[in-house]
Amino acid sequence: MTTGVRRRMGVEERRQQLIGVALDLFSRRSPDEVSIDEIASAAGISRPLVYHYFPGKLSLYEAALQRASDDLAARFVEPHEGPLGARLLRVMGRYFDFVDEHGPGFSALMRGGPAVGSSTTNALVDSVRQAAYVQILSHLGVTDPPARLELVVRSWISLAESTALIWLDGRRIPRAELETQLVHDFAALTAVSAAYDEEMGALLRRVIEDEPADGPFGDLVGRLIGLAG
Amino acid sequence: MTTGVRRRMGVEERRQQLIGVALDLFSRRSPDEVSIDEIASAAGISRPLVYHYFPGKLSLYEAALQRASDDLAARFVEPHEGPLGARLLRVMGRYFDFVDEHGPGFSALMRGGPAVGSSTTNALVDSVRQAAYVQILSHLGVTDPPARLELVVRSWISLAESTALIWLDGRRIPRAELETQLVHDFAALTAVSAAYDEEMGALLRRVIEDEPADGPFGDLVGRLIGLAG
Repeated sequence: MTTGVRRRMGVEERRQQLIGVALDLFSRRSPDEVSIDEIASAAGISRPLVYHYFPGKLSLYEAALQRASDDLAARFVEPHEGPLGARLLRVMGRYFDFVDEHGPGFSALMRGGPAVGSSTTNALVDSVRQAAYVQILSHLGVTDPPARLELVVRSWISLAESTALIWLDGRRIPRAELETQLVHDFAALTAVSAAYDEEMGALLRRVIEDEPADGPFGDLVGRLIGLAG
Repeated sequence: MTTGVRRRMGVEERRQQLIGVALDLFSRRSPDEVSIDEIASAAGISRPLVYHYFPGKLSLYEAALQRASDDLAARFVEPHEGPLGARLLRVMGRYFDFVDEHGPGFSALMRGGPAVGSSTTNALVDSVRQAAYVQILSHLGVTDPPARLELVVRSWISLAESTALIWLDGRRIPRAELETQLVHDFAALTAVSAAYDEEMGALLRRVIEDEPADGPFGDLVGRLIGLAG
């Protein structure tokens, strides 16, 4: 402070600032290691003033998680243009950006535990999964998904989560490789389902026919044929 | 009771009986809906006597979960004989038996929440995942897995969990189909990784060469070729 005078913030402005400061701290370390004192200190205000805006750490954590959830859900939104494989690859890039930015907090949340496992936090995690699910269906041009498609999309979303968590644990595989791999995994899980179900087969053929030979799906098929031969 | 005399159990025998009764109740409904009164009633003893053996509901829940975890981990043990696809299919059959028997409790546990998300329960869930991981590596004949194989196996285990959870939510797809699908998914995720990594490629070729044409892997490849053609 160069003037010695601290500018006074309005109530909503202060709340939003606290949420931002808290999200930053909750992202960098496991949330149960972050104290209200630390949040107050990082925000440049007193501990009692934090409690003036939020009744306790859990409510501040939930507000921070709400902001992070909105952010993550927005990353699944993608223009409906061009081949599907390339769209999904861009989404995976933004997904891993998020995971990278919020690593320790993301791990703590997804691995569960008393500090993070309230019914509110579970609902927020589910809301992001649901947003991802709705986006993917819209890109597939499906409004009333059959049970087998719902299974493929939802289970692939959980595969993306577990892949990100395993990546965070040591970062032993380059993330760009995993972004591409998850796009391939989506195609592979769809193909497995399509191999035994006519409706899924029709969906797969419709998606594949728009894919360029040098896109992620085309490249995978070429390599798999090489592997088999 | 036909004699009017209740047989007295020893301490350990009574503890084991209570765990069995509790596991049955915790399996059939979400654990936070099960009361100590109900467990006492089902065990045919008084509520204070339950507290004599277990300090509270959480400790009884954790003991029940320990038994269920040991049971589930044991289902991943399979003789090292015959083709890998058939072995994995038998494991999946036992896995879905377990999920079927413990449906509501399994869902509540895996979806997290305050009633079930203690550090002890998280550790038990992780211990089952680890047991499954170790078993699969042993069947692959690998003792020092490269990072890409670890990722495939661990992320496939999470795929099996999410597939089971989605199945429990309405049971809209026959479970036998999903047991086979998960075996195929394992092959598909391995193949995707193998398409871009020589070490994984060598592993895949070694597994595939022992597979019969009419086994689950052979059948899938035949159908995928049909789908592509």
